[in-house]
Amino acid sequence: MAINLNIPAPDAIHPVSGIEIGTAEAGVRKAGRRDLTLFMLAPGATVAGVFTRNRFRAAPVQVCEAHLAAKSGVRALLVNTGNANAGTGEPGLAATRTTCAALAEKLSLQSEQILPFSTGVIMEALPVDRIVSALPQVIADLQPNHWFEAAHSIMTTDTQPKIHSRQIDLGSQTVTITGISKGAGMIRPNMATMLGFLATDAGVAPALLREATRRIADQSFNRITVDGDTSTNDSFILIATGRNGAPIESADDPRYPALLEALVDAARDLAQKIVRDAEGATKFMTIRIEEAGDTDEALKVAYAIAHSPLVKTAFYASDPNLGRILAAIGYAGIDDLDVTQLRLWLGDVRVAVNGARDPDYREADGRRVMSEPEILLRVALGRGNACDTVYTCDFSHEYVSINADYRS
Amino acid sequence: MAINLNIPAPDAIHPVSGIEIGTAEAGVRKAGRRDLTLFMLAPGATVAGVFTRNRFRAAPVQVCEAHLAAKSGVRALLVNTGNANAGTGEPGLAATRTTCAALAEKLSLQSEQILPFSTGVIMEALPVDRIVSALPQVIADLQPNHWFEAAHSIMTTDTQPKIHSRQIDLGSQTVTITGISKGAGMIRPNMATMLGFLATDAGVAPALLREATRRIADQSFNRITVDGDTSTNDSFILIATGRNGAPIESADDPRYPALLEALVDAARDLAQKIVRDAEGATKFMTIRIEEAGDTDEALKVAYAIAHSPLVKTAFYASDPNLGRILAAIGYAGIDDLDVTQLRLWLGDVRVAVNGARDPDYREADGRRVMSEPEILLRVALGRGNACDTVYTCDFSHEYVSINADYRS
Repeated sequence: MAINLNIPAPDAIHPVSGIEIGTAEAGVRKAGRRDLTLFMLAPGATVAGVFTRNRFRAAPVQVCEAHLAAKSGVRALLVNTGNANAGTGEPGLAATRTTCAALAEKLSLQSEQILPFSTGVIMEALPVDRIVSALPQVIADLQPNHWFEAAHSIMTTDTQPKIHSRQIDLGSQTVTITGISKGAGMIRPNMATMLGFLATDAGVAPALLREATRRIADQSFNRITVDGDTSTNDSFILIATGRNGAPIESADDPRYPALLEALVDAARDLAQKIVRDAEGATKFMTIRIEEAGDTDEALKVAYAIAHSPLVKTAFYASDPNLGRILAAIGYAGIDDLDVTQLRLWLGDVRVAVNGARDPDYREADGRRVMSEPEILLRVALGRGNACDTVYTCDFSHEYVSINADYRS
Repeated sequence: MAINLNIPAPDAIHPVSGIEIGTAEAGVRKAGRRDLTLFMLAPGATVAGVFTRNRFRAAPVQVCEAHLAAKSGVRALLVNTGNANAGTGEPGLAATRTTCAALAEKLSLQSEQILPFSTGVIMEALPVDRIVSALPQVIADLQPNHWFEAAHSIMTTDTQPKIHSRQIDLGSQTVTITGISKGAGMIRPNMATMLGFLATDAGVAPALLREATRRIADQSFNRITVDGDTSTNDSFILIATGRNGAPIESADDPRYPALLEALVDAARDLAQKIVRDAEGATKFMTIRIEEAGDTDEALKVAYAIAHSPLVKTAFYASDPNLGRILAAIGYAGIDDLDVTQLRLWLGDVRVAVNGARDPDYREADGRRVMSEPEILLRVALGRGNACDTVYTCDFSHEYVSINADYRS
């Protein structure tokens, strides 16, 4: 369906010690596809999450937050695709609690030790019976090396599974980082993504893991947008199984900066993969705002550009339509913006200076950059030293087709 | 190009005493079309305007504001299409001043008595010589009954001219109101529209006319959106020639409420015509938010819905995808929104109650409403007594085609 960009698969997918994964066909929405995924965590793993800020938080998001707050030691994550269980009111909450209770009984756990996730169609009742019926199969399927199957099983309108896996050296220790994500539309995460699961076998103390999760989300999933539509179900979960070496107890641990950096890299890669597989995307755009007064300003300008249908269709057409970009910067909401200070680059080509077209700019140069599948758009505001980057994609006929057809 | 909705022409176009209009082919961007328009006002007319809040205000917008502030008595409005003279820096301002000076000389006026307007491609140099060369033709063409020609001559990607004309009784006086507008893309006016010109032969004192202009814009052009892209050139101008009856000096004049109401109606009609002719539009949507805490809240929710690409493509597909509407309400930015208070109607069909699907709702009923070319979407927030309405359109393949091709 999507005209997706190249999403390289990792050379190797490293299992994470302390995590087993099963998938099964529950028939949530469609028959003949794996749509139920179970992550089993060995005792002692620490887990943290960030969730959507949409006021219509889906039932599973609400239950996840309650279960994490209970601090009972998370032992399992259950993910269904095909139905988001959002906009379903009290019956939706009851449905999620029922599936958690059924799984808890089968695994001899408490309900609070299970985190539920749902993604798919909004405002339709979750088929609890079908999910509960498939629990024996998903448990029987548990294996450490099922990350690829899980990446497939959580997909909705995605065309490709999204996986990141690597090993890094933390001094004498070699640590594994593996994660998956999904999402292609209704993507403008606010504090999290559609669904992202990232795990390491390193140990990280709970409070530190929570702080790390937020920092990682803010540099990855919170910097992407496809259509500006913040989902009801965005969830990003970070798991540290602690099976490899002594746990990292504080940010002063010399291993922490390297681990955090690698986790940010992994999360950013998973987030960018969502943009690359975005509904109808033909181009991947990096929008970098420099010389902003603060981060908020930089993001306002970046998102104004990234959400402008006129800018997105111009990128689709490989048309260096500078006026549309300038107009978006102008309405981004910086009331005292001095446009005469503004400079703009397409890739390595400076196209605007002093708020107007660069006298040396040749449209052929702009068109050359715009024809690439990966484009860097850089704006210097001349206001300060803050800088931030947002990743997005273009807007094609295919986006309209996909979203005009999605439910039918 | 656009799959435009029905835009009824007025039964009769009433000239406004004290105004003559000429059009001409200046060849600003394309040959063989009228692209230059001149409004000549008899002495004594009062004129007020509101303009874009985009920080990249086009050169003609800046000059218009300066000339209005000079209070020299506006006598002429000169409009070119094909080039917006925006993002053009100091040379752009010089170009606008040159055309005003050339016209002033030919009409024996001061430059400050002329208001300039430009619309079209952004960030390209205005062809001043071609405009100045066409001034004799546009002056020679001046006639009171050229409103239809003017509505044509100011079009860019519009497919139909947009005209409103009526006569109303103000006590013993019969007053004429006639106006035109243009715009089809880059439409989310902030304090004004792309271009709207509305005139009456009634007389209104300057300060009162300025106040009226802002009130009228806030109930018409400031309540429409096509793609969320606020233009660099939005301008709405209200002219009261004062040729009919004693001028209205204050809001206490018994004629004022009726005149204001008629002007609001006229401006709203001209604004809605822009939405009906929006690029690629196949449906006209009225988004009415009720029970909001204040106007700001109502508008946040209305615009979140009106700008969501997912909602707009669902309307295009006649698909009552309620989840997308709920999601947009949820991310509209009301942090303490209690979603359990929320009700939602598609036309006369209540589709959601207590923040979830109405148990009595049948999808066939939703689909029936969504299949209409004109759709009312009503949301009750359960927070207060404020209410506001925004007008928008759907998002089609054709929108992408038009905007991917516009400059090529």
